[in-house]
Amino acid sequence: MGHLSTPERTLGSYATVKYPVIFSLNAMAFELRNRDLLGRIGRLSTKSGSVETPAFMPVVNPLKQELSPRTMREEFGCDIVITNSYIIKKNFGDDTSLNVHRLLDFDGVVATDSGAYQILVYGDVEASPDEIIEYQQGIGSDIAVILDIPTGWDVPRSRVEWTVEETLRRAESALPMIESDETLWVGPVQGGAHLDLVERSAKEVGAMPFAIHALGSPTEVMENYRFSVLTDMIMTAKLNLPPERPLHLFGAGHPMMFSMAVALGCDLFDSAAYALYAQADRYLTPMGTRRLEGLSYLPCSCPVCRNRDARELKETLKGERVRLLMEHNLHVCMAEMDTVKQAIAEGTLWELMEARSRGHPSLATALRGLHRYRDDLEMFSPQYKGRGVFFFGPEGLARPEVTRHLRRLERQFAPSLSRDRLLLVSAPEGRPFTKTRQYSLLETALDEGPNPVPRAHICFYAAPFGVVPEELAETYPLSQFEVAEPLDARTLFFTAESVTRYVATSAYSEVLIHAGDSLLDSLVADACREACEERGIRLTVVSGPKQWGVEVMGRLITALKYGK
Amino acid sequence: MGHLSTPERTLGSYATVKYPVIFSLNAMAFELRNRDLLGRIGRLSTKSGSVETPAFMPVVNPLKQELSPRTMREEFGCDIVITNSYIIKKNFGDDTSLNVHRLLDFDGVVATDSGAYQILVYGDVEASPDEIIEYQQGIGSDIAVILDIPTGWDVPRSRVEWTVEETLRRAESALPMIESDETLWVGPVQGGAHLDLVERSAKEVGAMPFAIHALGSPTEVMENYRFSVLTDMIMTAKLNLPPERPLHLFGAGHPMMFSMAVALGCDLFDSAAYALYAQADRYLTPMGTRRLEGLSYLPCSCPVCRNRDARELKETLKGERVRLLMEHNLHVCMAEMDTVKQAIAEGTLWELMEARSRGHPSLATALRGLHRYRDDLEMFSPQYKGRGVFFFGPEGLARPEVTRHLRRLERQFAPSLSRDRLLLVSAPEGRPFTKTRQYSLLETALDEGPNPVPRAHICFYAAPFGVVPEELAETYPLSQFEVAEPLDARTLFFTAESVTRYVATSAYSEVLIHAGDSLLDSLVADACREACEERGIRLTVVSGPKQWGVEVMGRLITALKYGK
Repeated sequence: MGHLSTPERTLGSYATVKYPVIFSLNAMAFELRNRDLLGRIGRLSTKSGSVETPAFMPVVNPLKQELSPRTMREEFGCDIVITNSYIIKKNFGDDTSLNVHRLLDFDGVVATDSGAYQILVYGDVEASPDEIIEYQQGIGSDIAVILDIPTGWDVPRSRVEWTVEETLRRAESALPMIESDETLWVGPVQGGAHLDLVERSAKEVGAMPFAIHALGSPTEVMENYRFSVLTDMIMTAKLNLPPERPLHLFGAGHPMMFSMAVALGCDLFDSAAYALYAQADRYLTPMGTRRLEGLSYLPCSCPVCRNRDARELKETLKGERVRLLMEHNLHVCMAEMDTVKQAIAEGTLWELMEARSRGHPSLATALRGLHRYRDDLEMFSPQYKGRGVFFFGPEGLARPEVTRHLRRLERQFAPSLSRDRLLLVSAPEGRPFTKTRQYSLLETALDEGPNPVPRAHICFYAAPFGVVPEELAETYPLSQFEVAEPLDARTLFFTAESVTRYVATSAYSEVLIHAGDSLLDSLVADACREACEERGIRLTVVSGPKQWGVEVMGRLITALKYGK
Repeated sequence: MGHLSTPERTLGSYATVKYPVIFSLNAMAFELRNRDLLGRIGRLSTKSGSVETPAFMPVVNPLKQELSPRTMREEFGCDIVITNSYIIKKNFGDDTSLNVHRLLDFDGVVATDSGAYQILVYGDVEASPDEIIEYQQGIGSDIAVILDIPTGWDVPRSRVEWTVEETLRRAESALPMIESDETLWVGPVQGGAHLDLVERSAKEVGAMPFAIHALGSPTEVMENYRFSVLTDMIMTAKLNLPPERPLHLFGAGHPMMFSMAVALGCDLFDSAAYALYAQADRYLTPMGTRRLEGLSYLPCSCPVCRNRDARELKETLKGERVRLLMEHNLHVCMAEMDTVKQAIAEGTLWELMEARSRGHPSLATALRGLHRYRDDLEMFSPQYKGRGVFFFGPEGLARPEVTRHLRRLERQFAPSLSRDRLLLVSAPEGRPFTKTRQYSLLETALDEGPNPVPRAHICFYAAPFGVVPEELAETYPLSQFEVAEPLDARTLFFTAESVTRYVATSAYSEVLIHAGDSLLDSLVADACREACEERGIRLTVVSGPKQWGVEVMGRLITALKYGK
């Protein structure tokens, strides 16, 4: 991770233009430490201390807690919680000395919501946007949200437009009040599933000097398992907001989607699901939700589940059972966030997404849909990871490593001019390809004896990367990747197509293929034939049942050295 | 699970022939309670109590324990442990009153190994097979293994043959000694990756009255991630042993392969990996192994990992750190086994395998290879599960639900003779298909107004099941399944092919297709065209961009009612 050893603090692309003063303060609030895909590990500094992101913020009821915020910090590792300033105001509004940290007895970071959720549920709240801002300042919130208007779900477009416009108006008119404030203010993005409105909302609010942004209204989308819609909403917001600001996904608290949401650039999550689900005897897992009554075993390693069995948990009296389920649910959320962070640190966030997507077909559908964001995934993902790439199937074609290799081949790679003949070889099993016995055999054969013309340029072809020139075979990720067999048709064609593209756009005067007898081999031969015909150059295919046997190798060397 | 409410105690197919007496005792030792694929939840009764399977048996060093067996039972839920009788004999051989439960201070079930592992490592042991049997009886083992000869790995076939023959000889000559013994005796299967020898070994030892069988020598296969070889070894052993006897997979203790091994019929697992890995600062997860030094976060919800962070764990002094890692590793193994059991209970073992196979491409390769065992998977899997089937891609084509539907369609289903015209409709989004608006629309249109010929037989087509006749649409699993989009080529062709087969072998006099405009729609239309040409019957395809629009529906009804 050498290229990340200096924390990244890029200044925002929009924010500095209109509001230079406040932004310079807020820009210091978020330091990036590690990345994978659009996911990142960061440190968010607030006036009550800093928290590491991505972070799950449990929603804490300000009036009554089954699990105290102090316990959450000490036993669950929650350094940040979120509570509702509007409910506090309604209940303790007269007490002007009230401080939210003291109220919750919590010395970590406290974020507060504004009552916007209550607008969504009840239509309106009994407080003005200004009052809500002042109140959050007064009670000492570390992270606070303006009183935005949630878009909601299944509402007419005119209503959606109004929620976007009104939220932007409120954001803009909040600015004088939050200027030079130590609180980190959140600028919400609305628009629901109307991506053009999400884009407009994100661009406009992203141009204002908020420290954090939040994407509203994903709850219904998630509850209905419309994860493809959710990924579009997140990506639209993310790509139109200043990338260096943290993005909060409002009301998202199911561990099954943490990996995907983080991979798309979400940094903060809040939810009361751990508690609400517990009250309904629902048990969270990173693969989905289970009803307690449907559990014969407790599929979890948390302290709650290791200290009792399913029958005991089911027979526990309601109050205690809710508390135990709440603890389990919170452990699972916190552990999954650590799992996501570890995946970012080691560069395996894609693999984690693939595993978690087996929790529900709609998650797998959403993962497959990421193909259309492959350039964005590539742009934000680090160049090098400590671990090899695991390729499982067509979903993986959207991996940044694949996109980046194809781009490098297309734009930055040119073989030595003296090697104007291409020898395409199907990939041997070992890694790197150039350290295999097969490559040595080829090299020796090409270098010894009469060599009337310059040595051919050896390129391997391998799924999913396509052409792997010998010069690049020992670079990451070509030096270390593993592929699940057998290959699917889409990966085969994707690979063959990129071989054709390489040949069709190259300057070689001649192509030789030294292939085995797999489906990929015959597809590549067909693809090359088309490319060579198009370029009007000669193609020789040397293959046989034993690719590296004496007979085939003899023919290959003859073809390479004597041109026949 | 009504069909399983009576425990299954089928008598063995081989065992009753030659050795009727002992077997009747041992047959009572294992009761099946629940099944999924070839996996099952069972209860194994021993003289010291019963244990539920599948069970992970931690290997306990009889001389020195970092974690006492009593703690393992009380804090980790291990009701069964395994230790090495040969090491006990070497160290305490003079003490004829020694009892293994007292030695380990463990009142659960104790299995003992025979020293065969020491043969593998050191070439031989200082005890005869008879002595080892007597010794295990003497110390009161609940489950004991004869002194077999492990095949090992990378040894010449002649050596493999000898290990198989010698193990069988020893098994046979052990029989008089273990007759009417309360100990449950394990008959090992050898043969390594030589499947013909595994088959012979399993058939022969399976014909002897052992209570339990064990498959030897998988350790090297697993350490080299050759999971396809492992699945072949397991399936060959399993299908040639009496299915009602528990199968122990020797030396298997990595949680990443529990789901697959259980799905193929393994019931018992033993390993010292939880301890050995801990000593080497290695951290187990259900997705693979991590080095402690590579962990920036602890991706686990176990008590060890929730009470500290990665830095604290790394900075803990060696002795304490090993103990903590051992605890973590053991928690993970026990929790994964509970996860596997819960998956069996709810019928989601296939989904769990798919998720876990994302831990390494070779696991995914092995999962794909299960296609060749699809008939066996189908035969042992229950007919009905409480939950809908999740279909993620081509791997899922080997699911028992798919195999069973195709078989039912082929062998047991015949449409009413009066409905001799087939109306094939692409599947609507809702479930069951016959409860959708689209089906009502069709039914209404077909039933009202002039109806010169009998109403057509409506069948839906849907991946991965192929043809879904209206009569079956509300039965499991056709009534509840979810499919990840977009479909891969293999699934598309698989589906289209089963539609063709249905049409080609049917007695319909005419076929109408009412299709949308997806790739599956056009493939099915092409496939039907071939089948109809072959059968010499008329095919009408009614389709258009709006499948359920007025124009297309009008044409469809005209075609159905007036034959044009």
